[in-house]
Amino acid sequence: MNTGNDDYSHLKEEIISSERVFDGKVIKVDHSTVQLPDGGSASREIVYHRGAVSLVAVAGDEMYFVRQYRVATDDFLLEIPAGKIEVGEAPDETAEKELKEEIGGVAESLRKIHGFYVSPGFSNEYVHLYEADNMTIDKQALDDDEFLDIVKIRLSELPAQLDNGAFQDAKTVIGVQYVIAKYNL
Amino acid sequence: MNTGNDDYSHLKEEIISSERVFDGKVIKVDHSTVQLPDGGSASREIVYHRGAVSLVAVAGDEMYFVRQYRVATDDFLLEIPAGKIEVGEAPDETAEKELKEEIGGVAESLRKIHGFYVSPGFSNEYVHLYEADNMTIDKQALDDDEFLDIVKIRLSELPAQLDNGAFQDAKTVIGVQYVIAKYNL
Repeated sequence: MNTGNDDYSHLKEEIISSERVFDGKVIKVDHSTVQLPDGGSASREIVYHRGAVSLVAVAGDEMYFVRQYRVATDDFLLEIPAGKIEVGEAPDETAEKELKEEIGGVAESLRKIHGFYVSPGFSNEYVHLYEADNMTIDKQALDDDEFLDIVKIRLSELPAQLDNGAFQDAKTVIGVQYVIAKYNL
Repeated sequence: MNTGNDDYSHLKEEIISSERVFDGKVIKVDHSTVQLPDGGSASREIVYHRGAVSLVAVAGDEMYFVRQYRVATDDFLLEIPAGKIEVGEAPDETAEKELKEEIGGVAESLRKIHGFYVSPGFSNEYVHLYEADNMTIDKQALDDDEFLDIVKIRLSELPAQLDNGAFQDAKTVIGVQYVIAKYNL
């Protein structure tokens, strides 16, 4: 039960041993053994990732999305603009760059509205969610291995599209729920 | 741009070759090469996961959460009840089981309110989000390697807690946004 203090040491696990089983460009995977709070041990599979940004991008009465194929899910998902944080990049830089690349968006300012781990049970991937203020649209400037369509949806249609399951990934559901609340849709 | 039809073949990638680089209990990791829509190729790192359930659990004027240590993020996160789908389990069974295990909750019925990939850029993990209707609380029945505290938060406090960053993972942000909208908080 919530004790009202911040001592959570009775919940802590400690990594006893760890093996790096995959060292990729996007993810590193460790197979680790942890000591549990009661002294027992357990196996943990951990995926390390540098994190990503995603963007709530509204211009006029439309919200901007991208449709892209995701080989991991074998599906064409409708997502808010997003991208991995590259080595040496600050999240705001990634956000500004991805907005321009994916939808040609240029914002007067970018404001961080949220941040969240996407799958803390096995991964440290953290997503920074920004809102693009006073955005104008120039032209897309995609990476060489990036293929996606820009999709604009009227704000008034967002609640029905959300209920219909049009948005199939967590960051996009969060962004759409945020816009629905902000604009009282 | 949104063409209004459903032919997305110009976005499709095809897996040309694949190596299973890790075969764990929770995740399987493939290092694959894909053929891009323009005929070029690219490397993809893919994490396969059986998926999970999570639960919006409200009783009276309180919403139920669990505080637990996550070794992947090295943090004590405040999350809605959740759990991995085991082999042979239907998502509703997992949901009913996890509700009981993690917070001692027994619902009159469980209703699926959403589903989403958590990180489609590299993983197929899909989370089913349920709402527990007319829930009563019995006692926790945790797994052997599970250590977590139950935390109850008054519905009226949820908007401020969300703004304060109390909820640090995607499924929990989605669940809290849902409750805020449903109860007009």
